[in-house]
Amino acid sequence: MGSDGAIFFLSDYGTGDEFVGVVHAVVHRLAPSVSVIDLSHEVAPFDIAAGAAMLARAVPVLGPGVVLAVVDPGVGSERRPIAVRVDGDGPNWLVGPDNGLLAGAWAALGGPTSAVALDPGRLTPAWTRRPDAGPTFDGRDVFAPAAAHLVSGRDPLGFATAIDAESLVVEAPGSRATRPMPTGANEVSALATWVDRYGNVQLDLRPSDLEELGVAADGVVQVFFAHRPEDRAVPARRVRAFADLEAGELGLVVDSSGLLALVLDQGSAAELTGATSGTVVRITAGAGARR
Amino acid sequence: MGSDGAIFFLSDYGTGDEFVGVVHAVVHRLAPSVSVIDLSHEVAPFDIAAGAAMLARAVPVLGPGVVLAVVDPGVGSERRPIAVRVDGDGPNWLVGPDNGLLAGAWAALGGPTSAVALDPGRLTPAWTRRPDAGPTFDGRDVFAPAAAHLVSGRDPLGFATAIDAESLVVEAPGSRATRPMPTGANEVSALATWVDRYGNVQLDLRPSDLEELGVAADGVVQVFFAHRPEDRAVPARRVRAFADLEAGELGLVVDSSGLLALVLDQGSAAELTGATSGTVVRITAGAGARR
Amino acid sequence: MGSDGAIFFLSDYGTGDEFVGVVHAVVHRLAPSVSVIDLSHEVAPFDIAAGAAMLARAVPVLGPGVVLAVVDPGVGSERRPIAVRVDGDGPNWLVGPDNGLLAGAWAALGGPTSAVALDPGRLTPAWTRRPDAGPTFDGRDVFAPAAAHLVSGRDPLGFATAIDAESLVVEAPGSRATRPMPTGANEVSALATWVDRYGNVQLDLRPSDLEELGVAADGVVQVFFAHRPEDRAVPARRVRAFADLEAGELGLVVDSSGLLALVLDQGSAAELTGATSGTVVRITAGAGARR
Repeated sequence: MGSDGAIFFLSDYGTGDEFVGVVHAVVHRLAPSVSVIDLSHEVAPFDIAAGAAMLARAVPVLGPGVVLAVVDPGVGSERRPIAVRVDGDGPNWLVGPDNGLLAGAWAALGGPTSAVALDPGRLTPAWTRRPDAGPTFDGRDVFAPAAAHLVSGRDPLGFATAIDAESLVVEAPGSRATRPMPTGANEVSALATWVDRYGNVQLDLRPSDLEELGVAADGVVQVFFAHRPEDRAVPARRVRAFADLEAGELGLVVDSSGLLALVLDQGSAAELTGATSGTVVRITAGAGARR
Repeated sequence: MGSDGAIFFLSDYGTGDEFVGVVHAVVHRLAPSVSVIDLSHEVAPFDIAAGAAMLARAVPVLGPGVVLAVVDPGVGSERRPIAVRVDGDGPNWLVGPDNGLLAGAWAALGGPTSAVALDPGRLTPAWTRRPDAGPTFDGRDVFAPAAAHLVSGRDPLGFATAIDAESLVVEAPGSRATRPMPTGANEVSALATWVDRYGNVQLDLRPSDLEELGVAADGVVQVFFAHRPEDRAVPARRVRAFADLEAGELGLVVDSSGLLALVLDQGSAAELTGATSGTVVRITAGAGARR
Repeated sequence: MGSDGAIFFLSDYGTGDEFVGVVHAVVHRLAPSVSVIDLSHEVAPFDIAAGAAMLARAVPVLGPGVVLAVVDPGVGSERRPIAVRVDGDGPNWLVGPDNGLLAGAWAALGGPTSAVALDPGRLTPAWTRRPDAGPTFDGRDVFAPAAAHLVSGRDPLGFATAIDAESLVVEAPGSRATRPMPTGANEVSALATWVDRYGNVQLDLRPSDLEELGVAADGVVQVFFAHRPEDRAVPARRVRAFADLEAGELGLVVDSSGLLALVLDQGSAAELTGATSGTVVRITAGAGARR
């Protein structure tokens, strides 16, 4: 993999406990020259679907290395610890629990080419886990050592067993279909898939979906929110940049992933509209009557 | 110490200010090839006991290097800045204020073999501190330079004076005795020592303490919380993994430190029970009448 | 710049999304041996003035390298992406949007010696940005590549155009004048410029300002807060260290930047007084009548 490969680390550990630092320390002890890059550790506890979505957004930009992802409510149970091989010029291994967390990432990277089930007995260093400790911290005891070995180019069959990539869990619990659906001649429905720190509301819509509705690049649409009464449609203007909007005006920009997002200029579209991740919206072309 | 030694950094600085980054920058300027691994900076402000407990949990897993810890309400006063030497294959120096913060860590690493008092006058680089600045940021001016020098293998007597290890402060203010006490033939009392991000409540109990009560590996106990009326005992089942529990069922697992913790499956035991760090509980064997 | 130069990274990205990690990954892909040191990413969204103040406090301590700063509500609009050259033994380039964010930093480092406007077309790697993505993440697409190239010593004219340093935006929107004003023979007014995690309230006053009022090094002053009735002056004692104060007693220490700060011992002066960043205070010498 070359000495420049990094480990890209995502979890729901938060940063108030020592979990993240301990995982870094385990990697450093096994592979001292490897950089560990934190994607985020603020995934909501146990929210596999949110972690999977974040990984899917991030991985296309990452360089060579190993993705280490831990959102793992089933730790210590029968769910398998896995490493999944993918091709391409980005990360070549994805390490984590077999619970759907990694599925969005491998899909974004062209799909798995092979997979292994990690063997804790061969991975856990004697110094990470007291003999009397419980199996509640596989990030430290299993996944970090596996990521360190893989980024160092070691043969996974030294600490894992080949499994059928077809047997992998491909859907995170609670994940939703994310394909916009035309719901009428002049209308499309969509799902809010992510609300970021600024309150931007990413939709599972691409610009072409609006073009099919006949909305121009600077056109106006009406947005209906499933959680609000129908007569409270909010107009939103297609713009290129946040700063193109008036104060308080709802906009639609193409975001850094190529998807449409509901936004304000220097404000939170999520707060304005009450939308959260999972909110369903319908969009119709035209400035509407209530402008 | 070898070039792979890392600095393991814990503080109550938070990440909303530039303190943590400035300490990293000072280390990088003095020892550019050294990795600084953040354990956590979210220790509650001034909570020496919580920082000490976190260090004690973390240090047994860390590799060679230097622990840099700053929870330091006495900064600028007469409390001594120190570095404590420990033996073993983990960290060999612990750097911080002499206020009990480091005591759990050196105890977990076999006790101090020697100690020095750091000399700010010989440590503070001219570029970290304006001549007119106050002595309020020893993390930047004293502890970071000391850690950088020690991880680089420099002689501590170049910037510090030997002191008697017997003179070190060994107890953090507000720390509590953490030894379970049998309080009856069929009962043990314990202390909640840590609530983690998931709401798992770590107790100062080991599995052997329950075995002495005659509780089987999959047995049920009654947990009485000092802050709740006695008749509100909550049953808790000994399980191996979170996923072995029913939804909403309180469990006891052996955690990653070898201690027992009150847990839920994908939920917060702290929220369910109202337990916080410092809560006292009594545990009796048996399924009880109120199941 | 030498191989030890680091990138010092500040933003309003927060750590709940993957933005910070993606920027680290882009730098690592372009300059794998370079350390990226996070100053903070918790600047309030869009708060250019707060980011500028934090940079101004931090940069005098930083070693060689590049400052990468992104608080950028105008992303995608006509505001220029820039890199500003400064002399000295600290950072030699400041990279970010031309919106005043960098102005405090270059002032603290002696002023700009030259400047360039970054050219996104020559900077954005094909792998960071899908062809159909919007221009909403210049941290990833423009600033991180520029910082990676500059820290690696590449010629900025390969990806940027010289501009007149006189044309740079020098004031962050919403920033306030921060010079104490004598408002009477025995009085000085000042501005609260920063409240840190501990609730310490930094003022734009130096010890010499109090000396001009005739306040001794251990003297007492009366502090009037613009947001509180005049008769509610709070006495504050000049001390060297937090621990010199009684419990609950307001103090004035010289902080690590050489400025005076209102503080408590192990408590929040901001909470006690209601002061926030931007609060105006008046200070008079003397213990007052209400001691």
